[in-house]
Amino acid sequence: MRPARRAQLALALEVAATPTPGAVDRRHDHADLRFDHLLAGAVGAADGLDAAADGEAVGPAFERAVAGMAAAQSAGNTQFGALLLLVPLVRAAGDGDLTPRTAGAVVEATTVADAVAFARAFDHVDVALGEPPPDLADLDMRAPTDAIAAIEARGIALADLMERWAAVDGIAREWASRFERTFAAADRLLERSGPLPDRAASTFLELLAEAPDPHIARRHGSEAARHATDRARAVLDGDADVGELSAAFAADGINPGTTADLLGGGLFVALERGVRV
Amino acid sequence: MRPARRAQLALALEVAATPTPGAVDRRHDHADLRFDHLLAGAVGAADGLDAAADGEAVGPAFERAVAGMAAAQSAGNTQFGALLLLVPLVRAAGDGDLTPRTAGAVVEATTVADAVAFARAFDHVDVALGEPPPDLADLDMRAPTDAIAAIEARGIALADLMERWAAVDGIAREWASRFERTFAAADRLLERSGPLPDRAASTFLELLAEAPDPHIARRHGSEAARHATDRARAVLDGDADVGELSAAFAADGINPGTTADLLGGGLFVALERGVRV
Repeated sequence: MRPARRAQLALALEVAATPTPGAVDRRHDHADLRFDHLLAGAVGAADGLDAAADGEAVGPAFERAVAGMAAAQSAGNTQFGALLLLVPLVRAAGDGDLTPRTAGAVVEATTVADAVAFARAFDHVDVALGEPPPDLADLDMRAPTDAIAAIEARGIALADLMERWAAVDGIAREWASRFERTFAAADRLLERSGPLPDRAASTFLELLAEAPDPHIARRHGSEAARHATDRARAVLDGDADVGELSAAFAADGINPGTTADLLGGGLFVALERGVRV
Repeated sequence: MRPARRAQLALALEVAATPTPGAVDRRHDHADLRFDHLLAGAVGAADGLDAAADGEAVGPAFERAVAGMAAAQSAGNTQFGALLLLVPLVRAAGDGDLTPRTAGAVVEATTVADAVAFARAFDHVDVALGEPPPDLADLDMRAPTDAIAAIEARGIALADLMERWAAVDGIAREWASRFERTFAAADRLLERSGPLPDRAASTFLELLAEAPDPHIARRHGSEAARHATDRARAVLDGDADVGELSAAFAADGINPGTTADLLGGGLFVALERGVRV
């Protein structure tokens, strides 16, 4: 299977893993986002993933993946973050060997044009973004046209942009850290045994227990994100029930979106390394 | 979205539809076949579906789809029948307009080489086949090498082969009937409203209630197939519960495999005609 197909499969397996408390999964829908929207988003992103594997620049390939994802279903943003994580990884895998070093090299090679294409991707779909930190006010992606003007005026490459956003965004942090948590997630998936979706569900809980989810922090504040992490830890420690956690997150609208994206990236790396469905 | 992607999405949506009594679906696995195997099979088949859309001959494109499906997961045959149904439809859609007439023309244009490639597909995966009828004994696909020799000696095109098998195989019957039930399933999917997986689950029950499933007949006899049809009818009439039917089919190992394949084909046609996820 080629890298772009593996990335598609990783997106499908991420949503098939259950339970992943708070996320849409095989057994859980949200009111405005269903399982089938995510399956369609994964198929719709295929052209952009193919382009990345075939050597297209990361920014335009990402924009194409997002446009395809958005056109394929009616729920809006299904996998923006997961694609932002996957596109450089797919590009590295397409170039040859996928390692933190080669993925890091893809990031370092990004240009101002990549940053502009990244900003344009926000025109294709509504992405839930909070207020940017004061020092990033002119790079507010909620106003892509202004952000593009600032990117061009200041000559900001996509890698620089991610570096600046790493403090507040978990996917940007992966770009800036050579995909540290993504590769660690893949190691866990590879070390475990049993059906891959079960391994993925366990890995999801561990990722959530390990660090507060930036997507939760953006929507509900950092206290809520820390609380979610503590609750995931309690499930892992055997002090709480995962079904109750799923129900509580659903009731409070808590969605560990970045954790789900990291799992999707980890599944892709694990598939590249030979894990079997 | 291009036809080959829509076919992939149709395969994913078919398995996402629930309840589809007796079939693997979003809420049901079999002991030896899980939901994730089917998702992986759908992604693995993509190269063959692409080839069909790009105009490759139907037999070789089908063989390629089956080989990719088999290589992508460890459960063996996941979607052989569905791909046999989809490949000529994808080819017709790739050529231009998908209608019973254009799909029929794709069938009529098949050659002896297509029949040979079809027989070779049985080398990639174990397909549950019963004893062939006496007049088809030398075309027994459980012994592909002998069948290929007979196909070549007798000059049998793939369309002829399907015509001969139509009495005992539901997908062959679709080939021979210009995909009559497949297009009818698409009409139902288009007429209904609500989430597409829910429409698909209703359509599955109607297809099963409408005619005995040949896959059940092959495995359990025609009496069991008729009984399954009667039970599906009782659910539609409000005289039985669909959850109980799912449990009963699971207990008896009753799997309406052809009905699931027809639903996959119907979903593809409906997506081609503009139904939205």
